[in-house]
Amino acid sequence: SLLDLLQEVHFADIAEILHELTLEEATYIIKLLDSEKTSDILTELDSDLRDNILRNLSAKEIAEELLELDTDDAADIIADLPESRKEEVISYIEDLDHAKDIVELLRYDEDTAGGLMAKELVKVNENWNVLTCVKEMRVQAENVTRVHSIYVVDDNDKLKGRLSLKDLLTTSTKTAIKDVYIPKVDYVNVHDSAEDVARIMSKYDLEAIPVVDEIGRLVGRITIDDIVDVIKEEAEKDYQLAAGITQDVEADDSIWKLTKARLPWLLIGMFGGLGAASIINGFQDAMELYPILLIFIPLIQATAGNVGVQSSAIVVQGLANDTIGGEIINRLGKEFLLGLVNGIAIATVVLLVSHFLFDTSYLVSVTIGIALITVIVNAAIIGTFIPIFLDKKGIDPAVATGPFITTSNDVLGILIYFLIAKVILGF
Amino acid sequence: SLLDLLQEVHFADIAEILHELTLEEATYIIKLLDSEKTSDILTELDSDLRDNILRNLSAKEIAEELLELDTDDAADIIADLPESRKEEVISYIEDLDHAKDIVELLRYDEDTAGGLMAKELVKVNENWNVLTCVKEMRVQAENVTRVHSIYVVDDNDKLKGRLSLKDLLTTSTKTAIKDVYIPKVDYVNVHDSAEDVARIMSKYDLEAIPVVDEIGRLVGRITIDDIVDVIKEEAEKDYQLAAGITQDVEADDSIWKLTKARLPWLLIGMFGGLGAASIINGFQDAMELYPILLIFIPLIQATAGNVGVQSSAIVVQGLANDTIGGEIINRLGKEFLLGLVNGIAIATVVLLVSHFLFDTSYLVSVTIGIALITVIVNAAIIGTFIPIFLDKKGIDPAVATGPFITTSNDVLGILIYFLIAKVILGF
Ligand SMILES: [Mg+2]
Ligand SMILES: [Mg+2]
Ligand SMILES: [Mg+2]
Ligand SMILES: [Mg+2]
Ligand SMILES: [Mg+2]
Ligand SMILES: [Mg+2]
Ligand SMILES: [Mg+2]
Ligand SMILES: [Mg+2]
Ligand SMILES: [Mg+2]
Ligand SMILES: [Mg+2]
Ligand SMILES: [Mg+2]
Ligand SMILES: [Mg+2]
Ligand SMILES: [Mg+2]
Repeated sequence: SLLDLLQEVHFADIAEILHELTLEEATYIIKLLDSEKTSDILTELDSDLRDNILRNLSAKEIAEELLELDTDDAADIIADLPESRKEEVISYIEDLDHAKDIVELLRYDEDTAGGLMAKELVKVNENWNVLTCVKEMRVQAENVTRVHSIYVVDDNDKLKGRLSLKDLLTTSTKTAIKDVYIPKVDYVNVHDSAEDVARIMSKYDLEAIPVVDEIGRLVGRITIDDIVDVIKEEAEKDYQLAAGITQDVEADDSIWKLTKARLPWLLIGMFGGLGAASIINGFQDAMELYPILLIFIPLIQATAGNVGVQSSAIVVQGLANDTIGGEIINRLGKEFLLGLVNGIAIATVVLLVSHFLFDTSYLVSVTIGIALITVIVNAAIIGTFIPIFLDKKGIDPAVATGPFITTSNDVLGILIYFLIAKVILGF
Repeated sequence: SLLDLLQEVHFADIAEILHELTLEEATYIIKLLDSEKTSDILTELDSDLRDNILRNLSAKEIAEELLELDTDDAADIIADLPESRKEEVISYIEDLDHAKDIVELLRYDEDTAGGLMAKELVKVNENWNVLTCVKEMRVQAENVTRVHSIYVVDDNDKLKGRLSLKDLLTTSTKTAIKDVYIPKVDYVNVHDSAEDVARIMSKYDLEAIPVVDEIGRLVGRITIDDIVDVIKEEAEKDYQLAAGITQDVEADDSIWKLTKARLPWLLIGMFGGLGAASIINGFQDAMELYPILLIFIPLIQATAGNVGVQSSAIVVQGLANDTIGGEIINRLGKEFLLGLVNGIAIATVVLLVSHFLFDTSYLVSVTIGIALITVIVNAAIIGTFIPIFLDKKGIDPAVATGPFITTSNDVLGILIYFLIAKVILGF
């Protein structure tokens, strides 16, 4: 039967299959299978589909699913429910400790360590001896899929260190934990950003990290599988921002959702284009006396946009990886130099091509060359400055790589071009 | 002393510090600390700095560092050495088994499971009993930092399944492994791509995965820390490709290296710009009779570029996540519709603005509107088609999001604009 067949399939694979089915079919399968399996499936679904399926389940049915999940995943599902259903669902969770843990996790912002951690972990008191410790561990470990480390706390629940399973097994049962634990342990604060946690865990190759509250008490644990998801989501978000997509969308989303994600940038670009039209329209003399200038507009614009995106992309990645050192002024100086090098290279080629291919006069060729160098240097500096500025203001610098940098560089590039032409050609 | 101080610091932190020092200072520290620490530091360094430091070490010194490393990291370091030094370094590795394992790993492409795996793992024969198994495991586990799973093989070394540590400890010592192992185990093939391994491990939340050769023999194991690095590097590469940076660079690299990474796209963009100049230059009649058309060039170009990047970014991500289903023709049809919706929205605004702000005649306004819709639909289809085409040809589709899509859409957009103008305005 379908039931037996699906029982053998991994929950992550069933989740993939559900995305191909209608909502009715997907709901049917979630109701058919028992919640040990379906709870895990729910955590793997896109939030759209999950919201729709949960709308078809009663509060009691949802609570049954949550009972099977680790607290971090359960909290994530409740956080996504409409406000009106949250309390009812929580009231139906049969295990009161589980419900209490979930409610605690709901307090934290999803982009922080608190939003990522689970309450499931194994901890022992420094004042216990090895025997008590092993007994307690057995009980606690039942709720923990992978133990990784045993954390040691004091009477106030403050994190003191960790224990290696090996030491525990090779030490006499009467030894005090105090005398065998390793006091050195990596941890994060409950309010640390998810990106910082990802940076620490990947830097130190950790598979789990304990989370402490403001006064150092052990309150949870973050595991690497959830950090892998954070890293992937962050990367997708940055990539989409750079490509001018303002919302988390996938190729298979509806045309309406895709339009909502894509139209905003197109509109920003459109207003930029209309701004550029005004600027050119303002240089009527140039249009009449030197129409040849107009054929190089695409070149000026493409170059300005490209340089700006390159500069901002490098800064955004540097900020994300914490590899940007030194003063802003040095960085801008470097981009200035880089722009100059690239600008001179490009301008030289264009100077020759425009002169021989388009028969531009000496002065017009020089105008184009100097305009290109200026536009490139300007775009490099703007592309560098804006993300650094946004970052200092606490705004995600990745926003800059998309709409703003390209459009402002497009428009500014054309303004610079005609201003330089005006000065050199004197119209 | 400096030695004691650094002995306390995590190798990943020392690696960060070394990047701030001169080559002489960095080399000094690598020679000062013992190889248990410095070998790990070496694995964390940027390849530039590592190459330079290794140039200052003798083959024997390098071999001593490699002796301390897991085989995967050791093989990566040897692979980066100049051909002339490889053999000499290998000949100095004192542990012959270690050297043999490293040489085996050197056979595999770095972007495959073989290139990621280490030989360190714990495996037992299905024909052993639990007692033999535990004894053997103790010996093997000495070389393995984290055991994760015990893999079960047959007499021909073929992967049969895995053992849980718990089962092993709760079963009588005379039980045959055959009777207790779990036959279901995720694995990858040695030639699977690194991206596929990353997809599987993150989908199934695995912390380690065994690797088998063409005939199913267990040949290695990949751990999640190395997959986290793969995911991050892949994301950075895609982001840089989308931003038109052709090489792995960081904000702190030299101006020369940054220029090498950035100039190629600028040159592609430049040739595109010159191509656009030729096209416009070819429409002399338009320039003389309808100079107002020229002021909308930036708008046409920006829109074409933006739409193209959006479409290709969504396809590139869909291909990377395996979430693109269905026929190419359906996808193109969808992008056609999406382009139409976005195009009509943008064209309506522009039509009104151009008519009232720039006093364009009825026919010119219609020209701009129809051109915008056509350009957007065209850019959406090209942006979708090119990455799918590249992917089918076995080329990384992420290449498409950068230079090619933007430049070809810029140029094509301008051509379409003037052709439509020619038809409607009849010059
Ligand atoms: Mg169910
Ligand atoms: Mg959460
Ligand atoms: Mg790492
Ligand atoms: Mg590592
Ligand atoms: Mg979790
Ligand atoms: Mg970010
Ligand atoms: Mg050394
Ligand atoms: Mg390798
Ligand atoms: Mg996962
Ligand atoms: Mg998961
Ligand atoms: Mg490794
Ligand atoms: Mg890729
Ligand atoms: Mg552009």
